[in-house]
Amino acid sequence: MRAAVLHAAKDLRIESREAESPGPGQVRVRIANGGICGSDLHYYFDGGFGAIRVREPMVLGHEVAGLVDAVGDGVTGLAAGDRVALNPSLPCRTCRYCLAGAPNHCLDMNFYGSAMRMPHVQGAFADFVVAEAERCVKVPDTLPLTAAAVAEPLSVCLHAVRQAGPILGRRVLVTGQGPIGALCVAAARAAGALEIVATDVVDEPLQTSRRMGADRTINVAGEPDALAAYSGDKGHFDVLLEASGNQAAIRAALDVVRPGGVLVLVGLGGDITLPMNTVVAKELNLRGTFRFHEEFEWAVQSIASGRIDVAPVISDVIPLAEADHAFALAADRTKSMKVQLAFEE
Amino acid sequence: MRAAVLHAAKDLRIESREAESPGPGQVRVRIANGGICGSDLHYYFDGGFGAIRVREPMVLGHEVAGLVDAVGDGVTGLAAGDRVALNPSLPCRTCRYCLAGAPNHCLDMNFYGSAMRMPHVQGAFADFVVAEAERCVKVPDTLPLTAAAVAEPLSVCLHAVRQAGPILGRRVLVTGQGPIGALCVAAARAAGALEIVATDVVDEPLQTSRRMGADRTINVAGEPDALAAYSGDKGHFDVLLEASGNQAAIRAALDVVRPGGVLVLVGLGGDITLPMNTVVAKELNLRGTFRFHEEFEWAVQSIASGRIDVAPVISDVIPLAEADHAFALAADRTKSMKVQLAFEE
Amino acid sequence: MRAAVLHAAKDLRIESREAESPGPGQVRVRIANGGICGSDLHYYFDGGFGAIRVREPMVLGHEVAGLVDAVGDGVTGLAAGDRVALNPSLPCRTCRYCLAGAPNHCLDMNFYGSAMRMPHVQGAFADFVVAEAERCVKVPDTLPLTAAAVAEPLSVCLHAVRQAGPILGRRVLVTGQGPIGALCVAAARAAGALEIVATDVVDEPLQTSRRMGADRTINVAGEPDALAAYSGDKGHFDVLLEASGNQAAIRAALDVVRPGGVLVLVGLGGDITLPMNTVVAKELNLRGTFRFHEEFEWAVQSIASGRIDVAPVISDVIPLAEADHAFALAADRTKSMKVQLAFEE
Amino acid sequence: MRAAVLHAAKDLRIESREAESPGPGQVRVRIANGGICGSDLHYYFDGGFGAIRVREPMVLGHEVAGLVDAVGDGVTGLAAGDRVALNPSLPCRTCRYCLAGAPNHCLDMNFYGSAMRMPHVQGAFADFVVAEAERCVKVPDTLPLTAAAVAEPLSVCLHAVRQAGPILGRRVLVTGQGPIGALCVAAARAAGALEIVATDVVDEPLQTSRRMGADRTINVAGEPDALAAYSGDKGHFDVLLEASGNQAAIRAALDVVRPGGVLVLVGLGGDITLPMNTVVAKELNLRGTFRFHEEFEWAVQSIASGRIDVAPVISDVIPLAEADHAFALAADRTKSMKVQLAFEE
Repeated sequence: MRAAVLHAAKDLRIESREAESPGPGQVRVRIANGGICGSDLHYYFDGGFGAIRVREPMVLGHEVAGLVDAVGDGVTGLAAGDRVALNPSLPCRTCRYCLAGAPNHCLDMNFYGSAMRMPHVQGAFADFVVAEAERCVKVPDTLPLTAAAVAEPLSVCLHAVRQAGPILGRRVLVTGQGPIGALCVAAARAAGALEIVATDVVDEPLQTSRRMGADRTINVAGEPDALAAYSGDKGHFDVLLEASGNQAAIRAALDVVRPGGVLVLVGLGGDITLPMNTVVAKELNLRGTFRFHEEFEWAVQSIASGRIDVAPVISDVIPLAEADHAFALAADRTKSMKVQLAFEE
Repeated sequence: MRAAVLHAAKDLRIESREAESPGPGQVRVRIANGGICGSDLHYYFDGGFGAIRVREPMVLGHEVAGLVDAVGDGVTGLAAGDRVALNPSLPCRTCRYCLAGAPNHCLDMNFYGSAMRMPHVQGAFADFVVAEAERCVKVPDTLPLTAAAVAEPLSVCLHAVRQAGPILGRRVLVTGQGPIGALCVAAARAAGALEIVATDVVDEPLQTSRRMGADRTINVAGEPDALAAYSGDKGHFDVLLEASGNQAAIRAALDVVRPGGVLVLVGLGGDITLPMNTVVAKELNLRGTFRFHEEFEWAVQSIASGRIDVAPVISDVIPLAEADHAFALAADRTKSMKVQLAFEE
Repeated sequence: MRAAVLHAAKDLRIESREAESPGPGQVRVRIANGGICGSDLHYYFDGGFGAIRVREPMVLGHEVAGLVDAVGDGVTGLAAGDRVALNPSLPCRTCRYCLAGAPNHCLDMNFYGSAMRMPHVQGAFADFVVAEAERCVKVPDTLPLTAAAVAEPLSVCLHAVRQAGPILGRRVLVTGQGPIGALCVAAARAAGALEIVATDVVDEPLQTSRRMGADRTINVAGEPDALAAYSGDKGHFDVLLEASGNQAAIRAALDVVRPGGVLVLVGLGGDITLPMNTVVAKELNLRGTFRFHEEFEWAVQSIASGRIDVAPVISDVIPLAEADHAFALAADRTKSMKVQLAFEE
Repeated sequence: MRAAVLHAAKDLRIESREAESPGPGQVRVRIANGGICGSDLHYYFDGGFGAIRVREPMVLGHEVAGLVDAVGDGVTGLAAGDRVALNPSLPCRTCRYCLAGAPNHCLDMNFYGSAMRMPHVQGAFADFVVAEAERCVKVPDTLPLTAAAVAEPLSVCLHAVRQAGPILGRRVLVTGQGPIGALCVAAARAAGALEIVATDVVDEPLQTSRRMGADRTINVAGEPDALAAYSGDKGHFDVLLEASGNQAAIRAALDVVRPGGVLVLVGLGGDITLPMNTVVAKELNLRGTFRFHEEFEWAVQSIASGRIDVAPVISDVIPLAEADHAFALAADRTKSMKVQLAFEE
């Protein structure tokens, strides 16, 4: 079988490996599609991000779906041929955070394609992946596996929206319209937002966000004053979903979110400088959001039941053999949204 | 102008009255459509409910929409010809509940067509209604006024759903599929419920609830054991929206709502007997829900933007002249859902 | 060693048994004091409650403290001579509720002295108890073990108060002043209640509740109209902590809790009949509360640090040999509050 | 009568003015004591803070208590001789924030001794103040008016604690032990915090915080590693109450607050630079807190009932004639905590 192994920045090799057999409690999944995530891009282009660096060869990828190919002992509820989305996160289920219902903060998390621990956790950009059965969430036969492979980033966004508290009737600003921002638009819409305004500095992704449910889109580079029109009476929006990782976006949002509003920080960034007097005087709530938990099942079911249509964010499906091209494409915001690798030939 | 005046139980008279002019801060609205509510039915058939009795002639009706016909002094933002939904509730804005952001508990509420206070507050089943400008919420020209007249019951349901806390990803049971139950289904769907099961003892309304977004419907009279299948592991549902006002429905729900789940009581009823040990041991939350506040604007915007399609619940539109027929029809759950009066000729 | 074994209603025998050795992960605790709980009284006088019946000989008791006497293999952090309160609950840590942070709803709970499962879980009214190490919470050498043995009922009350949401600044009514009601008063006071009114139909326990922090006490049998004075403007209290299990107490509270207020049901009772219209129209929140979780550690620390003084509720400490007398005394609300057995001779 | 009028930075003049008579709905209060707040210090030493500058002569002061001296028409419930704390904030009661139960964000707030609007709102450091009756909260005759004058800063701290959600059982870190930090310690203790650690860079205020209820105090200048000991397993504290306004304090806290913890920002500061990756990956909640609302009454009642003893924070009471000395003393953290002016001679 083939696997996409990163050896160093810009050194991604399609290698041939022996397919393993599933052990007890495991299944082998023939991967069909795998989406390229922002962290994959950081690994590919920069060899990592912040203190997290690729220090040994690592298979990339954690947004995958495929077909169950072989079933290990003791596995129930899964059979060969089942179509599944693979949950890349497997928490320990015994630490204080797992037992508090917050396994996304697990002290011993196993997350596909992550260099946070040593040895690294190998990823899922491979023809076959042997996975614990509990990672598998079945999807209907009628659902394209490209859509199923969006379950993971959608679950990030559902978790982000959840951080904002009840969304029904809320006015929501979403800053940054990469795949995560666009899926946050869809998640906010699914959660009952009454008004969704999406901003970016590039036109193309804004068009996708409109299709995902934004009521209005603003190119803040092209219309620098459009957002400020929402600053009257101390602010218009109840909620900000910040997916740009950009300081200027957050600072601008502070003026248009009403007192007591919630600013959910989805986007990753480095140091950020904020005017604390504004945060204090408006009693703003800034909340980080990290990965997901039960939202993975929500995401699969939301896609499968048609509650959320993820098709607009899937811009490209590229054969594994052209992985370098796929990564380059994924890095170009004017040409792509979510780029997926296709493993079947 | 004509008005539908209730003199006593089953004594509804279409009377001719002088149309008034709007005073300062008021507008006159030419009513187009008015929905018959459960409380209207109680007034019509029983002369009231509980301690609330019709003690003087009262115009019925509080679910209306129409066109602005004349504008009083000092009114801004409204002009003749504007299409509006009329908010039947006008809180005092000065009492402790109004100032606490809970005007639905106002100590001096003015609510159309209500015999709670003496003199009664006259209702809006009339060709013209003079209303305070703040009661008027504009609707787009493209929206049928039949749909606009559903804003009021929908706002009740949005408020009910809000009582349940965040709905995103929740599994919701809705008991009782009258217009309120069916609109609760739609509201729960709009708020992101992952699974919605609707129950009733009559088939016809269940079909409507399916169209409003229920994933499954159960006639608990015809399939008495179907609901019990959800009782495993202490219960399946996170949320109950109870719109039947029926004790048996609530008791049955106690077994299928998970520990810590929320049971929102929308339906009105008299004394109800519950097994407190179950409530205690499962730490269930029972919450009443009463009327609405800002949800009226949410309802109008949700209908206007297409987020919620209320058309399936509007079963009949009957000319005012046939009001007695309309009330009889509204009381027959096998033949109607929401029955509206039409005022335009 | 001796153990207090219930064979049937009113058939409690002090039996001699062989003291066991602690296995791996266990310790043996020499019990010093054990409080008699309401459920112990039900077992003793009635052979059980509701569907839960004593069907085989069962050692009673779950409110105990003592000294570590022997330590099994692999236990860290505990040594012979340590003074400990014993947590009677040991959840499975693997079921859906344990992993959701709600182990008090564990699908496989092991709770001392409970006939809910068969074979029954033996209780802790014995000279020695072999317990899993994680049940032991150390208490300071300076703390009387009588006080440490109140940790369990106090943890029930801390959990109950927690169900009410933030208590700081709240006006709280506590109905029913048995040991649980009196400890609810203390817990509400510790949590920042601004005003606490305690009611009962007997004078003696009201005196204790005053010492536990009640600002006012009302004997609702002697002053039947005193509580009604709080019904103006739709109600005075933000929170009810209901510890009487009495329908009349809950019904009376519905009139004096403000709209949107929370009624926490701590007391167990059978069927209860409530006016649903009041619950609905006032949007009241009724919430059950069941046992506790992390609050057991909070209780120990609160007692140990002096935040909560439980001494006033300990009315009697009776030698094990006089257990029948102790149970009779515990059942007489005019003569006792919390009655404890003393095991050391 | 005398008033302490600021003309410019360091130009505070004790001026003689005509005492006014109370109009309808007003009372005249003979001020007894007035505490010097951090904002008063900014006005006095710097002529303002940020964009807020003293642009015309302004009487300083908003933490005052005194005796009702004369009563205007239509005032009920207040009589000459009543002892009162004066609420410096008077919201408009008609704007969207007032009607949403958040009057501290009032769009037309009248707050004593504030240069935020022009003309400035005159303050209360004067022998007599004519005040709207609703500003007056009665205090018992037995309460020293020095203590009553602490109601205002205590209400700020109660509001801050409330921003953190339920505090019962929580582990709380309080950074910065000026009067606000020390009162936050007391408020957290009153709200049920299980453990309170207080930090500062100066020893003297830490001693006060210990008396206000801190379980442990750390001079982070003297023991730079002591706080880091709380960083294991992703953090120890559930809640941070940040009262230093210091970036280093907040950054250090990010490492010792557990995932999902709440960081309440009470202290004012300018731009602050935070590592967003930590906020995101730990899902931290940063919340501003601004002034207070109903907490003013809570503060008065908490002081009056003995729930909170504010005496330890009142370090100095200085005659009005020595106002310059009082301001200098208030600015020296090693010598003073709360400095009050005394108006009675």
